[in-house]
Parts: sequence; C-alpha cells; structure tokens
Amino acid sequence: MSRTLDPHLELLTRLAQPSELRILLLVLDGVGDLTTADQPRTALELADTPHLDALATRSALGRIVPVARGVTPGSGPGHLALFGYDVTRPETDIGRGVLEALGIDLDLRPGDVAARGNFATADADGNLTDRRAGRIPTAECQRLVTKLREHLAASGVTDPEVILEAGEGHRFVLVLRGDGLSPALVDTDPQRLGAPPLDPAPAEGAFDTEKARATATAVQRLLTLFHEALADEPQANRTLLRGFSTLPHLPSMRDLYGLRCGAFAAYPLYRGVAKACGMEVFEVPKDLGKAVDAVAKRQDDYDYVFFHVKPTDAAGEDGDVAEKARVIEEVDRQLPRFLDLGFDVVAITGDHSTPAPMKAHSWHPVPLLLHGPRCFVDDCTRFDEKQAILGHLGTFPSRHLMGLLLANAGRLAKYGA
Amino acid sequence: MSRTLDPHLELLTRLAQPSELRILLLVLDGVGDLTTADQPRTALELADTPHLDALATRSALGRIVPVARGVTPGSGPGHLALFGYDVTRPETDIGRGVLEALGIDLDLRPGDVAARGNFATADADGNLTDRRAGRIPTAECQRLVTKLREHLAASGVTDPEVILEAGEGHRFVLVLRGDGLSPALVDTDPQRLGAPPLDPAPAEGAFDTEKARATATAVQRLLTLFHEALADEPQANRTLLRGFSTLPHLPSMRDLYGLRCGAFAAYPLYRGVAKACGMEVFEVPKDLGKAVDAVAKRQDDYDYVFFHVKPTDAAGEDGDVAEKARVIEEVDRQLPRFLDLGFDVVAITGDHSTPAPMKAHSWHPVPLLLHGPRCFVDDCTRFDEKQAILGHLGTFPSRHLMGLLLANAGRLAKYGA
Repeated sequence: MSRTLDPHLELLTRLAQPSELRILLLVLDGVGDLTTADQPRTALELADTPHLDALATRSALGRIVPVARGVTPGSGPGHLALFGYDVTRPETDIGRGVLEALGIDLDLRPGDVAARGNFATADADGNLTDRRAGRIPTAECQRLVTKLREHLAASGVTDPEVILEAGEGHRFVLVLRGDGLSPALVDTDPQRLGAPPLDPAPAEGAFDTEKARATATAVQRLLTLFHEALADEPQANRTLLRGFSTLPHLPSMRDLYGLRCGAFAAYPLYRGVAKACGMEVFEVPKDLGKAVDAVAKRQDDYDYVFFHVKPTDAAGEDGDVAEKARVIEEVDRQLPRFLDLGFDVVAITGDHSTPAPMKAHSWHPVPLLLHGPRCFVDDCTRFDEKQAILGHLGTFPSRHLMGLLLANAGRLAKYGA
Repeated sequence: MSRTLDPHLELLTRLAQPSELRILLLVLDGVGDLTTADQPRTALELADTPHLDALATRSALGRIVPVARGVTPGSGPGHLALFGYDVTRPETDIGRGVLEALGIDLDLRPGDVAARGNFATADADGNLTDRRAGRIPTAECQRLVTKLREHLAASGVTDPEVILEAGEGHRFVLVLRGDGLSPALVDTDPQRLGAPPLDPAPAEGAFDTEKARATATAVQRLLTLFHEALADEPQANRTLLRGFSTLPHLPSMRDLYGLRCGAFAAYPLYRGVAKACGMEVFEVPKDLGKAVDAVAKRQDDYDYVFFHVKPTDAAGEDGDVAEKARVIEEVDRQLPRFLDLGFDVVAITGDHSTPAPMKAHSWHPVPLLLHGPRCFVDDCTRFDEKQAILGHLGTFPSRHLMGLLLANAGRLAKYGA
C-alpha cells in the first residue's frame, strides 16, 4: 500500500523492532464513568476489586483521551485509536454499513460495498409514513429478507453479487460484491416522513464518479426488485439504505509494528474491527472464565493479544452503575488467570467511557493501567478514575498507547543517535 | 533559509520579543529514573538535596516527554527538543557520522560530509572475517589513521579535502570537505561476515543523484587508497564506512527567538549539538565547581545559557543508582552558585531519562523544575519524578519547554489582539 501514514504511526513503524516480550491489552468496553450529584461514585470506585487494586499497586496509572477532548467515539474509532491509528484521518473511517455488517459477523471482503437497510412504510403515493415499518420484530424481518432473496434469485440478476442478512427489528444489511463498485453513494433514507425515498445517486465529491454512477444504477435496479417483492406487504413495503461503505484500507498491525496479533471477543463487531487491523480473530464464549480458557489455548501464537469485555459498556448504556460494578468485579475475579497467562506487559483500559448517568458513550478520559517490568511503579493503589489522574502515565491520546506498549515490551528502538 | 518551520516554532518566532531577563537551562543528562520492585526509589528520591528542595518549594514543577510516549531519544533529539525543535521532522536528524565527528570535537562545517569508520579484517578473498578488526586498542587505531593520512598525502589526491581522526578502539571518523558533496550514500558496512565490503553508492531516493554519484566515486577512490595502505596489516586490512551525514540545517536559536545563546559543556557531543543550533560553545572542566566558574566569566554575553551535566547519564548507563544520586547531590551543592549567577529564569531538567534499572536511555517523562518571578509556585516541595506528576506545569512535549522559558523571561508577545 502506498498510502502515507500519519507522522506518529510512521515514527513507530520506523522504530519497531523484534522482542520476545508479549503484550496483553484488556479492553473493558466503556469502563470509564462519571461522578455527579446523584451518582457520587463511579462503577470502578463502587466495585470491590482486590486483584485490580493489588495490580495497580505494582503498576503505572494514567488516562487516555480516545479522539480529542470532548469528542465521543463510536466503537470503531474507540478501538482503532487503542491500536495506534489516527482516527481523525478519513482512511480509518468505518462506515455505518460496514459496521452493521461486521456486527452480524458477515464475512466482508475488501471492495465489498455494505449498506445498512431499514424496512419502512410508504402510503399509496409512495410517501414515507414510517421509516421503521412500525418497528417490526426480528422474526418478521427475517421473513421479509427471505422474501427479498427469493425474488432476487427469480429475477436472474447476478451482477453484482448481492448478500442480504436480517439484523435486529426492522434492520438488515445489504452487501454488494463485484468489480468496479464504489461506496460513494448518498443515503436513500430522506430522514423525514411525507416524502418518498431518495433515488440512489453518487455522493458529492465521489472520487470515481463513473464507478459511483454504475453502483447507483445497480442499487436502483435492486430497489425496484425489492419494491416489487414487498408490494403486498401491509407495513414493510419499502426499503431505505444508508451508510454505503467499504472496509477501511488500514495498514495491518503486523506491517506497522511487526506484531503477530490475536483478538479475542465474544461480539462480532469487535472481531470485525480487529480483523480490519489485520489481527487474527477468535470468537470466545460470553462466560469470562471460558473466554480466558480460549485465550490460554491460542495465546502462544501471538505477540499481542486484544481481549474485549462487552458487559461494562452494556451496563453503562442501561444506566445501571451497580451492574457495571458487578461486571468489573467479575473481571477482577478472573484477573489472576489473565495474569497467569504470562504476558510481560499488561494494559487494562477502555475504548471510551460509558457513564451510567448518561446511558451512552461519552468523551471523558478513560483510566489506564499499565503493568510491566519498566512501567514505573507510581503511588496509585486502585484502578479508578480519580487515582488515574495522579498516575505516572499522565493523560494522553489513546493512539499513543501503542507506543507505550511497544516500548514496555522492548519493541521500539532508540530514536536518533 | 527558506525552509518552513514547524507551526509551533513558527508561532514562537512570530511572538518572540526582546527583554532584559535571562534564562539558564541546567540539563542533568538522563536524570529521570524508574521505580521498580527492585529499585523502590529513584536517584532523585534517594539524593539528599536541600538546595533543590528549597528551590522546588519556590518553583513550578512538571514533566516533559522528549519525543512521544514510548519513544526513547538519543542525545541529539533529546537536546534539540529542549531547544524547541520538532525532532520528528527529518531536517533535524543528526546522522551517525556527524555525531561521531562532534563527539571527538571535530570542527565540522556546513556541507562537510562525515562518516563513521571501522577498521575491519578481510580474508584473502576479500570477505570480512571481523567487522571490528579484533577490537584493536585506541593506540593501534591512531597508528593506522596516521598511516592512512600519510598514504593519502603521498597519493596527491586533494579534492575533496579529507579529514581523518581516530576514535576509540576500532573506530575513526572520515570527513570530506569540498563543493558538490552529498551525504546520500549507502553504508559500505554489509553488517555481516563472509561478504566483502559494499561499494560506495548513492542511497535510494537520494535528493541530488548527480552529487551523490560524484561523492560515491570520491569515496571509492579513497577506499582504494586505504586498502593499499593497509595491505600489509595482519588485522586491520579493510575500512567500513557508515552514517554518511552533514550537519543539519537548523535555523539558529538567535534567528528563532532573538536569543544570544551560550552553551557550556564538558563533553564535545553536547557542544556539537549546541553549535548546530547556532549557540556559542565553551568547553568547561569536568569539575562542576570549576565549570560554574567558567560560566560566571562568560555569562554576561548571553540571554540564554545551556549548561550540560553528563555524569547523571553515565551513572544511569552503569546501572548505579547510588552514584547517580551522588552526582545529583554534587549538583545540589553547586546549586547556590548557579543561582547566584543572577539568571531571572532557571529551568532544571534532563534531555531524557536514563533509569539505572535499564542501564540505557528510556522513554519515561523527565521531571522539570521552572523557577522565575512568574512561574506559579505550586505545592511541590522536592524535585523528583513523583512530585513532578503533580506540579503546575503538567506533562508536555520537551519542545514546548522553549515557549515556557521565553514567556517567563518576558520574551513572548501576546498572541492576537
């Protein structure tokens, strides 16, 4: 790939050198939380975490800022930053269509164009009356997707290849596979009622207008077929598409850092993001103990292991700080087993904060714990938001974590003589 | 010079204004250290430093990151960053040949091409059997360099001018001086045994291929002469060259900041780096008391004085934390004399950390003390790594120190109306 890297990543790539030392990155999704008048203690502060406390006492603490002060990241940028990428650069953008496809574990290939679909309702004049078709249940969505597939097969249209998968509720994923496709299309969802869906069309500033126009024509033909297939449906008689996108062309972590990387995650979205960075990915059980077993079996093949814990984020999204603390305690109980895996450098952090009082991702800095033979043992005695402020590592952008991990593993050469 | 500056340096240059206030930067080379299970206290924590403590109580503390999180700098980048340069930009790169030349106090001039040389051993077929000629002693190296000089003089080759100086052990420095030279040559050291030395050749992507080719031809002619001269040597019958480089074309600190800068250092490398930034340089005795005397004599000519203390780094490299603490105590004893020199703004820091447990330079942030009438007296009572975390100045890139020094000396105008 001839693409230029951002200067920081280019520097790390220049300095990267081999070493025997191995790295474990334990991501507690959305772990950072907030103190407010109504929630005086964060989940990390509430949790009873003897093992994390003991590790903090032998480690360096600090905080990372995922994208920039005040900027709330989605799961894609949150993780890509942890892996060292500058997520403000457009080439790291993971579009909504791709994210949706990764989220249902679709095997996306380079060049595939993915879009997120909604089933919707239009009136007799073709104007939208419900952009979510009355929020039909998932089973209904699956029936409709099967119907579309059958109609498509009967139509004889085979180029580009079309992959359709039902998602949750009214959502589905459309993937186009073939030569000469472009993701530079506008959404067909007009984002308002009383108007018809928009026609597929090249986006303004599309890089290759010719390809975009051809892709728009192919999508138009598909939508006409879908429309025919859904003509007799009382609710879901239209489809809306948005977030046309392809897998980002990211340089792999192996090429960047010389690391053999393994990703272990129970949820497909995180495996998808890891795969986009060139990691080998493994689906692990949701049971944390069994997931650690899975890592134990395969870890010897990797210099760098990314392990993803989802329920911290889910509890934050639910606004349930007690449940979030309970999940953290579960991680704490498994911590000795993680440490027994024998990694030389262990980092524990999150891809972003998901404060329970906000029930959503947020921009707040995320506590970071870094353990290794050269980490600088500071005075912190607990892994939580407030102690992290006082830690040796300070507060810095998430994308600089990779340099610290490599350095602590002896994997960065000296810069300049 | 028409070269563009990095935006931060350009900003400082735009805002720089005259003032009577004078700055002293005291660099304790490699002063930052590490706490580990085996070394629970750093050299700064171990040292008994009543004067530094008293100064810390009246000062602002903080920490500087030399290049980027996790990146370990060499002495060149470590110092250039303290002087305000963005050392990730290629024009600040100080090559190995130049560094070696500066290290033996060779009077390098702009345009001179310097290379680091090794005496080596080749077998009858010309294949290398020892890239260091059995690590010959320095005296032997000096004899060989004299022999090369004499052979060269006898050959009548005078263009480019050739300067040869013996270094330590098997090392020497070659400098070419003349018009139309280029440093863009590959190393002739193949970095392995069983192969002959490589021929001098233009490096891939050489900016001026014509010049690089002409320089390669000149070097080839020299190597042939060297080869003849060494034909009867049992061990050192070949020379290997690497790190062809010229002095970096840095804008001078006078042009950038309007400062008359004086550098006082006992070791030539640091004088060399300072000279590359346009400072006037003075060799001072290794005895710290006598070195302060030398500063006292010349300081009135300068707005900014850089004083370099080497033994903190040397003790770190030796893994001797007690010796490092002892050196710090020696600096502490001289501190009242430094302060009596009457500088308005005094900063004490390091170019990087050299933790005793690592016996090497490292990436860890370096404690910084800044004293001046407007420095913000924070709550820190000791100059050490842990208090520095909590200081008013926070943790920031080394290259931003220059702005703080200028501001504290009243040498930066307001930005914008």
